[in-house]
Amino acid sequence: MNSPVRVVTCLLYAFITFCGVNAEGDDFKPIPPKAGSWVGPTTGEVWPNPQIRFRQNSFFVLQVDQFEFKLNNAAASSDIVNESVVRFKDRMFPGQAQRAREARQTRFRFQPPLNGRESTEFSYNVGQLDTIHVILESACGNCEKYPYMGMNETYEIVLNPDSSEEQFVVSSSVWGLLRGLESISQMVYISPENNYSYQINVTRVIDFPRFPHRGFMLDTARHYLSMNTILQTLDLMEMNKLNVLHWHIVDTESFPYQSTTFPDLSAKGAYDPYTHVYSQEDVRLIIESARVRGIRVMVEFDTPGHTQSWEKGQPGLLTECYDPTTERPNGRYGPMDPTKNEVFEFLTELYQEISEVFPEEYIHIGGDEVSTNCWRSNPFVNDFMNQWNITGDYKRLESYFIETLLVIVDKLPRNNIPVVWQEVFDNGDNISPETVVQVWKNWGIGWRNRMQAITTAGQPAILSAPYYLNYIKYGSDWVEMYEEDPHDFAGTEEDKQLVLGGETCIWAEFVNSINLIPRAWPRASAVAERLWSSRDTRNISEASSRLQEHECRMLGRGYPVSPVVGAGFCSVKWN
Amino acid sequence: MNSPVRVVTCLLYAFITFCGVNAEGDDFKPIPPKAGSWVGPTTGEVWPNPQIRFRQNSFFVLQVDQFEFKLNNAAASSDIVNESVVRFKDRMFPGQAQRAREARQTRFRFQPPLNGRESTEFSYNVGQLDTIHVILESACGNCEKYPYMGMNETYEIVLNPDSSEEQFVVSSSVWGLLRGLESISQMVYISPENNYSYQINVTRVIDFPRFPHRGFMLDTARHYLSMNTILQTLDLMEMNKLNVLHWHIVDTESFPYQSTTFPDLSAKGAYDPYTHVYSQEDVRLIIESARVRGIRVMVEFDTPGHTQSWEKGQPGLLTECYDPTTERPNGRYGPMDPTKNEVFEFLTELYQEISEVFPEEYIHIGGDEVSTNCWRSNPFVNDFMNQWNITGDYKRLESYFIETLLVIVDKLPRNNIPVVWQEVFDNGDNISPETVVQVWKNWGIGWRNRMQAITTAGQPAILSAPYYLNYIKYGSDWVEMYEEDPHDFAGTEEDKQLVLGGETCIWAEFVNSINLIPRAWPRASAVAERLWSSRDTRNISEASSRLQEHECRMLGRGYPVSPVVGAGFCSVKWN
Repeated sequence: MNSPVRVVTCLLYAFITFCGVNAEGDDFKPIPPKAGSWVGPTTGEVWPNPQIRFRQNSFFVLQVDQFEFKLNNAAASSDIVNESVVRFKDRMFPGQAQRAREARQTRFRFQPPLNGRESTEFSYNVGQLDTIHVILESACGNCEKYPYMGMNETYEIVLNPDSSEEQFVVSSSVWGLLRGLESISQMVYISPENNYSYQINVTRVIDFPRFPHRGFMLDTARHYLSMNTILQTLDLMEMNKLNVLHWHIVDTESFPYQSTTFPDLSAKGAYDPYTHVYSQEDVRLIIESARVRGIRVMVEFDTPGHTQSWEKGQPGLLTECYDPTTERPNGRYGPMDPTKNEVFEFLTELYQEISEVFPEEYIHIGGDEVSTNCWRSNPFVNDFMNQWNITGDYKRLESYFIETLLVIVDKLPRNNIPVVWQEVFDNGDNISPETVVQVWKNWGIGWRNRMQAITTAGQPAILSAPYYLNYIKYGSDWVEMYEEDPHDFAGTEEDKQLVLGGETCIWAEFVNSINLIPRAWPRASAVAERLWSSRDTRNISEASSRLQEHECRMLGRGYPVSPVVGAGFCSVKWN
Repeated sequence: MNSPVRVVTCLLYAFITFCGVNAEGDDFKPIPPKAGSWVGPTTGEVWPNPQIRFRQNSFFVLQVDQFEFKLNNAAASSDIVNESVVRFKDRMFPGQAQRAREARQTRFRFQPPLNGRESTEFSYNVGQLDTIHVILESACGNCEKYPYMGMNETYEIVLNPDSSEEQFVVSSSVWGLLRGLESISQMVYISPENNYSYQINVTRVIDFPRFPHRGFMLDTARHYLSMNTILQTLDLMEMNKLNVLHWHIVDTESFPYQSTTFPDLSAKGAYDPYTHVYSQEDVRLIIESARVRGIRVMVEFDTPGHTQSWEKGQPGLLTECYDPTTERPNGRYGPMDPTKNEVFEFLTELYQEISEVFPEEYIHIGGDEVSTNCWRSNPFVNDFMNQWNITGDYKRLESYFIETLLVIVDKLPRNNIPVVWQEVFDNGDNISPETVVQVWKNWGIGWRNRMQAITTAGQPAILSAPYYLNYIKYGSDWVEMYEEDPHDFAGTEEDKQLVLGGETCIWAEFVNSINLIPRAWPRASAVAERLWSSRDTRNISEASSRLQEHECRMLGRGYPVSPVVGAGFCSVKWN
């Protein structure tokens, strides 16, 4: 995925002449490798690691009340950029007066550790930085209203007193500017050696994502998640350059989505029809908050399994299970009933609503974990299968359901593209070449073989199997996720090109608004860096130092994230 | 431990005549056993489960503005009881107006589940309950200012309209009243069937703890914990009838305790000498908050290992490690240096301060995980060992350190009793018969054999090995802790009498103020019930239902506790 993007970058920015920049040049030195493992946090480093970054020890000083982002005309014409620079300026100077006071109070903590070394590197002040230019290099920057699969997120930053240019961040898209502004906000730090001033080092960055699909999956059905939790998640995703919120919005346990077409679904299927639902207004707020952060909102209404809660508001959707002795319904229900036309008529109407409410092109239709026991027990289902000559082949019945649903999605006026869980591929369903397959199973033949099979079949794939945040254990378990690379499977270069990226998922059986953020973060940051940064960004010790800084940064910005390494502290004290 | 307590209970309350109460009597029915597993939450049940409880379906109604606790003269003379009834009344009517409004809004959620049953049990209103008498049956109730090992926590509750007595909670100690008031506060619930009124069922309770030592260990050294986190922990401990805060206050990573005798210990050894410390005022606040909740604060200053942070403020305490080739110090340090008199002089002074600052009789002196490598490398240590004819026996040197420290503790004017980690026993140190041994190792011969060895040797023991909260995994992992019983080892009845109880521990390598409470609770509640309730309170399904209610109760009271079973919701929405 990278090479074309990189070439484009070089063509676009040829005038600045650093496509071929030499890492051993005179004025810019590469970041020195960190010695040892589990050393302390970095200062002013960026997470996820930029593709190319040169950083001097010399620094600019920033004054909160004098600093400004100056937008060129194209950038100023974008509502997203206009709105976002305010947010990024807040992030650059977190807590301002309070933060500076805390830093002053904590001067003693900069004493060398018992067995430690002191830094002897020389650095000097190159002057005050009052303006960073925000340059959108595109005539139609204003055209792009919603983020989309494959959007351009490339950006470049130059902060160099010797440059003939002024200091700037540049991109040919609003999405690239958002990513660049986030990087700038992370590069600012408070310097205890220089009277607790805000500083930013002399730096050049050329950056772009390795994968276009970098997702975070929320499950709002096993436990309801508050709007605040979801909005905080969007903030944290932006701070980690994740760009897809996969919203697993309903499931067997509850149906919190307030449908305009079928209001009974939440009125009867939510945990609570007033307090534990997402209204249309809630959904709009989430989509809008995501939009200005360059995050797609890909919704999932999982069928035909995982649907018990649907039956309450829409009786007749699910298969009635039969008691084998009495040969009568036993009061239980199975997956949706593929024998009924009403089921597909209902789904057609529902998907029309979904396609209108969610501007995102991709729609996740689910398709995982369908239990066939209930179908086996039901005489009408078996009659239906006899009619269609698939007697006893319940996997084929499952395929029939999915394929019919895929036709419904295909006919949507907005040309939506389906995403499916891996079972749909595993069952050999007839799917279109653009249908994206999401790999979630670690067991069986393992995710590597499954990624290979899917891409060899020519199907685009996203990887989630090693990125399940709900599985937790004692220790720095982010390392295991960090080490799993979506390209680590046997396959041709062409196969690898079909890997769109990955998603980290937090299933909510044991997660609610209380513990979601501390449980997910900064572990999700590890996946974010794997999906954004270059493949050779994989030194755990170096990553650990940057991640420790990133932990304290997210904490300082007000998000309750957990410790990443054993023992330590952030100067920000959480109360 | 139980039989004598039970006999005392019967003697004290003989006038109420229900020592021999028949569970199948006419007016009181035992709680019906719950069918199936993982059923929903209970309503108005108590956690941990009382020893004896009879509950009718009939109920009293309570009015927030009319209800009062009425103290008898003895109870009114106790500052603890006076202060605490305010707290418990708040807990009885949580959120009041807001809570009732939420309950009204959620009326639809009381619809039966898809495959569910409706309750057909008959219940009726027995009238309004405006007064519960709080009766302290002790002439010198006022004498007991601080909770202590073996304090009387027995109480009894009678809420019965047919009784000739009025409604009351009675105990012969303030500690018992605290426990009884907590139980009452848990029995109150909001009834959707009865116009969302507060209700409490007609109930009799006789209750007392199974074990006298029911602890929660906090580690404030690997990560600093905010005062708010510690104070919230004390609240939650009280709500779960835990009665010992074991405060592992310092360790290798940091020294946050501000000593008056040796202020440099925190000035140089804390993560931050201003913001990441516990001042004397902080310590007093914690002790006082614990005191009025009937919780002992047992502090631990762990030596001779786990002490790297001490050296910064008190140079010369630790053993210098030597490089074997150069035969010179290599700049690293090991455990405290047992060859120096100054070390023990320092410890004598420090322990005098500790003994004065902490009113608790028991002091934990640590003694775990001492690495002998540095001692082996140091020529002065080896010379010392030659002089004392223990050449090469580093375990004996470790014992020498501990035994010398035990003499220091023994000479303290307040007659403190030491608590030690199991290594002190394992090494065969000479310890007094009252020294308490804390078992924490699951490996090696396993905790059961170790508990047996310790108690067979006549030593009191507390169990922590299966109760480590820092070890987490996906799922309802509270069940494993719940099933571990401190008496489940081969031993005589006499041996078992030496088991004082247990402690659940949360080591803070990966825990700080952000995630401590959601990670620890309600998992710690499982241990709390194991240590308080009768040995035969072990039905997981029944416990799960009560624990789900308890989770939502703690949440409703404002504490960020996590879900206990897969999927679900509390009517309180956390934002």
